[in-house]
Order: sequence, then C-alpha cells, then structure tokens
Amino acid sequence: MSLKAFRGAFLDFIDDPFYVSEADSVRYFSDGLLILENGKVKALGTYDSLHQTYADVPVMTYPDRLILPGFIDTHIHFPQTEMIAAYGEQLLEWLSKYTFPIEGKFEDKAYAQEIASFFLDELLKHGTTTALVFAAVYPQSVDAFFEEASRRHLRMIAGKVLMDRNAPAFLTDTPESAYADSKRLIEKWHKHDRLLYAITPRFAVTSSDEQLRLAGKLLAEFPDVYMHTHISENVNEVALVAELFPDSDGYLDVYDRAGLVGTKSVFAHGVQLTNAEFQRLSEARSAIAFCPTSNLFLGSGLFNLKKAKSVDCPVKVGLGTDVGGGTSFSMLQTTSEAYKVTQLRGETLSSFQALFLATLGGARALSLEDTLGNFEPGKEADFIVLNPRATPLMARRNPTAIAPSLPELADQTFATMILGDDRVIHATYIMGELAYENEAYKENAAYK
Amino acid sequence: MSLKAFRGAFLDFIDDPFYVSEADSVRYFSDGLLILENGKVKALGTYDSLHQTYADVPVMTYPDRLILPGFIDTHIHFPQTEMIAAYGEQLLEWLSKYTFPIEGKFEDKAYAQEIASFFLDELLKHGTTTALVFAAVYPQSVDAFFEEASRRHLRMIAGKVLMDRNAPAFLTDTPESAYADSKRLIEKWHKHDRLLYAITPRFAVTSSDEQLRLAGKLLAEFPDVYMHTHISENVNEVALVAELFPDSDGYLDVYDRAGLVGTKSVFAHGVQLTNAEFQRLSEARSAIAFCPTSNLFLGSGLFNLKKAKSVDCPVKVGLGTDVGGGTSFSMLQTTSEAYKVTQLRGETLSSFQALFLATLGGARALSLEDTLGNFEPGKEADFIVLNPRATPLMARRNPTAIAPSLPELADQTFATMILGDDRVIHATYIMGELAYENEAYKENAAYK
Repeated sequence: MSLKAFRGAFLDFIDDPFYVSEADSVRYFSDGLLILENGKVKALGTYDSLHQTYADVPVMTYPDRLILPGFIDTHIHFPQTEMIAAYGEQLLEWLSKYTFPIEGKFEDKAYAQEIASFFLDELLKHGTTTALVFAAVYPQSVDAFFEEASRRHLRMIAGKVLMDRNAPAFLTDTPESAYADSKRLIEKWHKHDRLLYAITPRFAVTSSDEQLRLAGKLLAEFPDVYMHTHISENVNEVALVAELFPDSDGYLDVYDRAGLVGTKSVFAHGVQLTNAEFQRLSEARSAIAFCPTSNLFLGSGLFNLKKAKSVDCPVKVGLGTDVGGGTSFSMLQTTSEAYKVTQLRGETLSSFQALFLATLGGARALSLEDTLGNFEPGKEADFIVLNPRATPLMARRNPTAIAPSLPELADQTFATMILGDDRVIHATYIMGELAYENEAYKENAAYK
Repeated sequence: MSLKAFRGAFLDFIDDPFYVSEADSVRYFSDGLLILENGKVKALGTYDSLHQTYADVPVMTYPDRLILPGFIDTHIHFPQTEMIAAYGEQLLEWLSKYTFPIEGKFEDKAYAQEIASFFLDELLKHGTTTALVFAAVYPQSVDAFFEEASRRHLRMIAGKVLMDRNAPAFLTDTPESAYADSKRLIEKWHKHDRLLYAITPRFAVTSSDEQLRLAGKLLAEFPDVYMHTHISENVNEVALVAELFPDSDGYLDVYDRAGLVGTKSVFAHGVQLTNAEFQRLSEARSAIAFCPTSNLFLGSGLFNLKKAKSVDCPVKVGLGTDVGGGTSFSMLQTTSEAYKVTQLRGETLSSFQALFLATLGGARALSLEDTLGNFEPGKEADFIVLNPRATPLMARRNPTAIAPSLPELADQTFATMILGDDRVIHATYIMGELAYENEAYKENAAYK
C-alpha cells in the first residue's frame, strides 16, 4: 500500500453550482489534507480531522497555495498548436487558409510526435490534465498523440479526423477507410492505459452522408467510445450545412440521423443552436464544449450558456480552449473570456460556476465523473497547485493567499481567473506524481 | 551634446494604416540604428546607412528584438488598480459597489502615493510610457500621482475627478470647489516637467449642469489643457443621462453645451454613440478612447471602430486599458481584445492598425503627435524593446525573431498581440534612459 499526503487549501465541487446552492456544491478546506493511495484519492478533509489517522504518511505541504482538481479541456486540436493566432478570417475561410495546410504536415509521424509532445507539455504547464482532442486525418497522427500521452500516464481522449469532401485531396479519407482506420485505432487505443477513443468527424461540411452513416455504425458497435465533432459555430457554416443536406431538419439532425447523438457525444461550440436543438441535446444527454476564446477570436458569436444550464432544458457543458481557433491553452483565460461572453449577454458567471465547468462540469460532459473531476475517494488524483498571488498585480488584488471562507474564496478565485495565466500554475500532478513544476517556484517547495 | 545609439529591428508608423496603404504608413528596419540626442530622436535608419556617421557613439544592441515607440494608454484610472477584476456587475452597479468605496481611500495622500507608484511601475512593465489618467476626487490624489510620474520623468496626463452628485458624500465636491481645485492643480502641474493636466468630470451622471458649465469655463481659460471624461458606455447609463438632462439633445450634447467638446477632449468608450454624435466628434476633432477589455468585462458592448475610422466621418481613436473596468495593464492584451471586438462585428483589425492605435494613433488622440508616438527626429525617445518569442508557444508560433519584410512582420506582430503579455516586454526606455528591464532577460543584454 503506497500512501501519500498533501497539505494545503483545497477547492473542489461535489455538485453543480448552476443548479444547487454554493453550500451544496462547493467544498473548501482552508487547511486540508489529501490522502492518496496508489495514485487515487483515499480521503480529503481538514488537516485537523485527518492527520492523526495518517500520522506515518509523508506530507507534501503547499503553504499559500490553492489545490484544485486538474482542469479538463473538452475541445482542442493538437495539430493546430503552431498556427494559433492566425489572422483575419472567420471559420470557413480560416479552415481553408490556415488549418488545412498545417494539418497536412501531420502525415509525417515524427512531426506529429514532436508537436504532440510540445502540446501535452503546454497542457500540463497550464494545469490541464485531461482533454478531448482532435488529431489529424492521418491514423499515424493519432498513434503519435496517444504514444506521447501514454508516456505521461495522462487520461486523454482523441481520435482520427473523418473528412471525405470539401477539403484538399491530401487531407481526405473515404467513408470506408475512415471506418476501417477508426476501428483499428479504437481496438488499439481505447482503454489502453488511461486513453480513450473518440470517433471524430470534423463537421457536417466535410463529411458525406455515407461517411456519417458509417461513423454511426461504428459508434453503435463500440457504444462506450466517444463521438466528437463541431456544430453550429458560425452563421455561414450553418447555412452551408443546410445547403449540403437539403433533406435534414437542421444541423443537429444531420448527425442525429446518422446515429451520432448520444450520451458520449460532445459537440464543440453550438453558438447558433436552435431551441429545438438544445432540447434534443438535453434529451440525448449529449454535451456541448463552450469555447469562448475561439468564439470571440473567430467572431462566431456569444454562446447561450444560460439556455444550456437552464433547469427545463439542461445540457451538459464543458469548457474548451479550441486551440488553434482559441487564443490560449489556459483554462483560466478561457473562464475569463467565458465571463465576458456572459456579460455581453447581460448575464453573469461566478468563479465557482466557471471553475466547476473547468473541473467536475468538464468531467460530466465527458462522462468521466466517476473517474475524476474532484477529490471524491477512489478518483484518479490528477490535481493542480495554484498561486493566487502569482504576479505583483495579483498579489495586490488578492491580499491573502488563503481565503478564510467562501465569500473571500469566491472573490479570490474570480480575480485569479480574470488576471491569471500559466504563471498561476505552481505544479501539476498526474495520478499523484509531480508531472510539471513551474521553474519560478522550485526553490519554495517544502517536502516534510 | 550627449548622443546614444540603439541597434535592433525597429517598427513605427508615419501615417494611419486605416487610411493609407501599409507602404505609406508602416516603417520597418530589420537592422536599424536609432540615434538619440539628449533623450530625443536625432535619426532612425538602417544600420548600414547610419553607423559610419555615428561611429563614435556607443551602441546598445538588442539582437532578436523588435523596438517600438512606447505604448500610449488613452484611458485608465490609477485609483482602481487594486479593484481590477471585480465581479458580477455592469457599469452603474459596478461603480456603486466597488469603485466608489475604493476611491474614498485616496483622500489619504500617502496611500495615493503608494498606489501611484505601483501603478506607474505596472505601466512601465507593460510597455506603456504615456497615459491619460483619472485620479480621484481629492486634489491630493493628483499631487501624489504627478509627484510619482515626475520622479520617473514620464509624460503623463491626469486630473482630479469632478463629481458633485449621485455619489457618496465623501466622494463629492461642489461646482465651485471643483473649479477652484482644478484651476490650482493646472497652475501647479500643467507643463511642469513632462506633465499635462486634464479637466476630468467623471461623467454626466455624477456632474450637475452647473459643474459641467464651470468645467467648460475653466477649459476656455486654459485652452491647451485636456478634457477627459466618459461617454455612452452602457445602455442604462445613456438612458439615465437622458433622464437627468431632459432638455439635452443626447449624451454628447450635455458636454457640448458646457463647452467641453473640443480638439483636446478625450471621451472614453463611446460604445453607444449615435451617428450624429460620431459626426459631431469628427467635426470637433475630439478623440475616443476605445477600451475593449473593459467593454467586454462590463458587458457594455462592441465599439464601432469601423465607423470611427471611416473616411467620411473620421474620429481620432486611441486604445485604453480602462483599468479597473478593464482586465489588464497590457496594451498587447488590449489590442487582442480589440481584434475580438472587430471580429464579433464581422470586421477585422490588422496588427499594424492595432499597433498604430497603441502608438502614433494614441499620440494623435492625445494631440501629442508632434511630441512622441514614433521615431521622427525631435520626438521624445520613449520606446520599448519586445521579444516576439517570449514563451515556448510564442517561440514556436514566431519561428524567427526578426521578420525579413512586412508580410512576415504583420504575421509576427499579430501573433505577438494575440498571445503576448508583459513577458514580451524586455525593456522600457524613457527619454532614452532605461526605466524598466525584465528580470528574465537581464543576463542577455549586450552593451557594446
């Protein structure tokens, strides 16, 4: 039995603060103790209540830090890492001008491996421990990604892009090859180590009816595999889908008729969804990845989070950075932009709601709530250590590192999400093991 | 005669890229030499063309760096530094709940001095060398600010807030005291060292007709002093002004009738301006401070930059961080959010246009184009040294530090504004003297 203990301030969520009170959803120990056993959570409580029971266990103490479950990014493209911040276009033109040429480079497995390695290091540096990831159309780009993720013992979900039309020839597959390649990749990678597979049609524009039909067939054959795609991001895209599928009852219906709308389906964006489509996603228990930095950067629009989190039509929602359409790997910056989107809609988003979306909410969106997302016993111990006073400005805005109670914590975490970036991330732990430590803090750690 | 030389890549603007071609507005030397004499620009050109003429002058070389004129922030509040990122409200409620209580602390001059010092250090760290600044209602808050700015030899514009109603009693003045205090402050500070004064009614909501009338009288007495206020930020604010001034022909007219709309008037926000108001600002040659991070954070809306920069109704525009309604001291992050605002409006903003707004455009908005804003001979040498590869992600996105020509420079500077923050700022020079150097780069400097 291998036990470890971490002492510090702990924040996690045990329920959804969009639907229940803070008292019933937010858990906070200003002086807490987290006990791990073989990389999983054994107990979390106040230091006073637990330390005698585990008196023999070595304790890693993080004074003046806030410890959270690792961030979960529910939508991101690893091949787009180096084309982040590409200028001047909205979705469809941006794809043709920047994305497709870059993704062509991922036919080269060595290159894919280099970028996957850099990408995963960026995730860890920004405190993201699990992500739902688009690879490229080439099966070897998926192999490269999963090999690198496996080396780091990460819980990652990814898949080969399906795309058989409206894209350059060097990037297209066929319905049959996409089916066969995806099936082979599922058998190779799904549930290998902590890895999980997602059947990944890019979007309705670049997949024929037949390709979507075969993707649905594959999903029916492997019902615990994910389905990951884009939907209703941009007005022109929605119009184009209506043109391409004249017999459909809207964008979501294109996927629905192919059998792609289920409990493990994650749809990125959904900025332009109709009320009927929200209703259908709610019934199907599908999830939406809300990607605010991308929606602003590409001028797609303002996602209706209030509708998705309404009581009468609840849809699971996670946050996505959507790098390279998004402008940052940081889930903190993503929550900051999510707040701005809600403000522009005349609504609001508390820091607890935002951090819920970035942790347990993301886990629920990815049907991983039994595996990770908070510090419940038995869950995988992927967690992050935050410094709410990481810059001189943050130190002035957050006068104390440890909030004494929930109201101060709400304020401190709000300032941290608005002002924070990767400098806030002191350390990232994967299954209880240190996977990243910020250079700036190395001399301060105190193992005792 | 005290000469200095700096070698590196130089970018500045000699005209407005919204109205003329890049070839006619953007000036770039990939290997340039800047010659200073007594803190002012004597010459800028290619290294090859100038170095023999100035062979005896010691040269500070910045390899792999891009040197720009210092950023100009055309709207910011120094007393709001520590309340940046305050949660959950739009303009009017945000003022009552957060701003007014904080500004009350600035009656204490020592406190005002402490914050002014911190604030100016943050500006320099973010590459901002000139700003148009709201102080608080207390004259001593202006003294504190100007004393700190003077110690740093900065060109700063500021003024005492005028506010005689709709605010807590401890924050209000009277029309007469506001007039007398402002007049005394003008006589004390305007053109003292590099400092300039702005008559600063907060906004129409908190000033009576009589206070605005006396402010206009004072402006007429000191016509080269600035006028700095807010206008048409938020829909509810505009409605409230219409209620408070039932005889006016709109928000701008309230200021106009008081004689406050002139060539040295700077109006922050203007998100809700009517076409007629844009027209009037154009005729009056007044300026607007576009504050995108604030407009998004407070949910105010999307400024119509295209209208302001139209050929038929041109209005001078600068960028403002609007800290504490804005979310960052960084003019790079401000340009990034400006881009997102234009994208949401279905328009766009090139990096050259954005950097023009942050430098020469800001100087024009502040009627300082003869004094600073680019590297024309005779101008004050406030400039900044940027590292376009400041983080691992930026280094991957910008594969070379020195762009060979304008198309590559456009791309590199765009990625720098979208991904950059204070880490990009290697050094900030004031009148040719090093005023800030980033700790991360200290060992790399090469004076030869």
